[in-house]
Amino acid sequence: MRENILRLTDIPAHIPVMRPALPTADKLTRFLQEIDEGRLYSNFAPLCNRLSELLAIQFNVEPENVLLVTNGTLALQAAVATATKSNSTWTIPAWTFVASAQAVVSAGSKFVLEDVAEESWTLEPGTRRASDGVMVVAPFGDEPDLISWAAESNHRPILIDAASCFDACRNLQLVNKYNIAVMVSLHATKLVSTGEGGVIVGPKPWIADMRRWTNFGFCGDRIARDIGTNAKMSEYQAAVGLASLDMWSDTRVLWQEASQNMKTALEGASVKCQPAIGKGFVTSTMVADFSSPEQKIRAVSAFESARIGTRDWWGGGIHQMPAFKGISKSGLGVTDSLAARTTGVPLFIDMTSEHIDRISQAVSCL
Amino acid sequence: MRENILRLTDIPAHIPVMRPALPTADKLTRFLQEIDEGRLYSNFAPLCNRLSELLAIQFNVEPENVLLVTNGTLALQAAVATATKSNSTWTIPAWTFVASAQAVVSAGSKFVLEDVAEESWTLEPGTRRASDGVMVVAPFGDEPDLISWAAESNHRPILIDAASCFDACRNLQLVNKYNIAVMVSLHATKLVSTGEGGVIVGPKPWIADMRRWTNFGFCGDRIARDIGTNAKMSEYQAAVGLASLDMWSDTRVLWQEASQNMKTALEGASVKCQPAIGKGFVTSTMVADFSSPEQKIRAVSAFESARIGTRDWWGGGIHQMPAFKGISKSGLGVTDSLAARTTGVPLFIDMTSEHIDRISQAVSCL
Repeated sequence: MRENILRLTDIPAHIPVMRPALPTADKLTRFLQEIDEGRLYSNFAPLCNRLSELLAIQFNVEPENVLLVTNGTLALQAAVATATKSNSTWTIPAWTFVASAQAVVSAGSKFVLEDVAEESWTLEPGTRRASDGVMVVAPFGDEPDLISWAAESNHRPILIDAASCFDACRNLQLVNKYNIAVMVSLHATKLVSTGEGGVIVGPKPWIADMRRWTNFGFCGDRIARDIGTNAKMSEYQAAVGLASLDMWSDTRVLWQEASQNMKTALEGASVKCQPAIGKGFVTSTMVADFSSPEQKIRAVSAFESARIGTRDWWGGGIHQMPAFKGISKSGLGVTDSLAARTTGVPLFIDMTSEHIDRISQAVSCL
Repeated sequence: MRENILRLTDIPAHIPVMRPALPTADKLTRFLQEIDEGRLYSNFAPLCNRLSELLAIQFNVEPENVLLVTNGTLALQAAVATATKSNSTWTIPAWTFVASAQAVVSAGSKFVLEDVAEESWTLEPGTRRASDGVMVVAPFGDEPDLISWAAESNHRPILIDAASCFDACRNLQLVNKYNIAVMVSLHATKLVSTGEGGVIVGPKPWIADMRRWTNFGFCGDRIARDIGTNAKMSEYQAAVGLASLDMWSDTRVLWQEASQNMKTALEGASVKCQPAIGKGFVTSTMVADFSSPEQKIRAVSAFESARIGTRDWWGGGIHQMPAFKGISKSGLGVTDSLAARTTGVPLFIDMTSEHIDRISQAVSCL
């Protein structure tokens, strides 16, 4: 009888789809001590300013092109609220995280959905749109394509939701020539993080408007000159961000290794990844494209049996969210296809060879 | 000639109007180490849950009555957005910080201004209002008066902006019987703080709606069921809050001493303070009532000469803010009077007897 008893030690540990690792307490101490000395805790204080300067270098822009915000969604909201009047219409892709849509609505505007392109998983530029603004989404770590959108930005503001694209945002200097803003999330699940947080890069006058929006419409005094809210990043968030940025050259190597290992494991079973991976960008999420809905169902089931996490990061797309039930669902075939055939697979910086082996094995059965 | 040379040592140091002192790095370490172990950084994680539980005890409610939000303004916005449909009308006092008004507008609603009462500096209850909701403001540390507003809450939601009233919120259990929610700010300038942050206390179903609003309309999965945004408190904010709450019994004594010393100094010149001080509540802002605009002008000038800070925390009232230029300014006589005759004076926990002496001297000349 004994050999039929399932022993706990036989059950392999669950492999999560992600496992963030932010700077540990010891890495934060020197920044926290700076806060203690200055006794300034928010409102564009020294650590936030320094983080802005360092991010400006990272993105190849000037500090006045950069605004830190309490989270990425509110950064998008700041951009929408200051770029167009309330009740404007924004084009957004159906294939995105729900924050893109919620940001437009919370900023007092409306959205129309557009399908993404099969190759790029994102909107294609073109000036035929009737909307007041366009929110482009750079999917899962891909490069925000400012050059392609430059022409269209003469007709309407272009806001690029590049939430997970920290590594791909190496040169955003075109924001000084075109009406384009780019948002990068600094959430815990991202490559460089402030815990909760976001950063937006854009033309200086637009950034100045957004800055006022994040601080009650104030403009150097306590007089509200415009509609706004509080969306400021605190010094504690900035401390985490500074420590995280300090580690970036090291953590990038770890992300690259984990990505490469996962890519190899998936490719062994002829499974492709999201466009960003093919271009060599490091990202903190890996999305496997199983080519068909049937193959995805098989894969998710195999992963589940092997105690390996998967996650549909963007659900079925914006049109499938009950919150937006009035929205048209037609003409979104690529989004529907991507939602049905792709899913997020594990990626984190301390993945072991045992993790990779188990994932290889799970996909090899497909 | 020498005695005519002004020496730098003759110029007394500037006394700021406030000087926040949040928990120092060493006080944060054990909470940060907990974060490092759990590797959860946001989304209603363990430290946030613990802070909610401790605040529930503080406010004499249950944890399900409590929601932590990334800041107080977004907490008000969450309450407005979930209590009434968009484009509703809220009554708010003209005598308040601009965040009260910005929160209503940012939540997609409108406001009408009402004057405050001379005695209480706040709105008086009464059910004759035509608005869909009422935002009451407990001014400068005063007690949110749930009993008086209970009757009116049967007609419309009552939201109490008690931003600076941490010490006065000792018993909010009536939120379980009436349609009333109370927001307490946890901003750096407040008694207990998360750096940036806010907490809202209300009926459990309303809190559940607000919680969903702060997390993209999600309800346990990744499906957006309602309009929402990201307004979640991170674990780093919660760490600061837990350390701050740990110190509260000690810091309360320091606030009480500083308040008492300032009250005595002002009373020596027959200058009164805001209503909360008379009731014995500790607050982090002290507002001096100089009885007349002329006397305030003299006082501000005397303070300035003596290098003592003052600040009109709420400017001239909401109707004086250019952001709301369409709003009616009539019938706001008490607000106009308070704006003209009161101002914030220094209050912080490490005020010295030298500070108090200099302030006493400045007011004694009035």
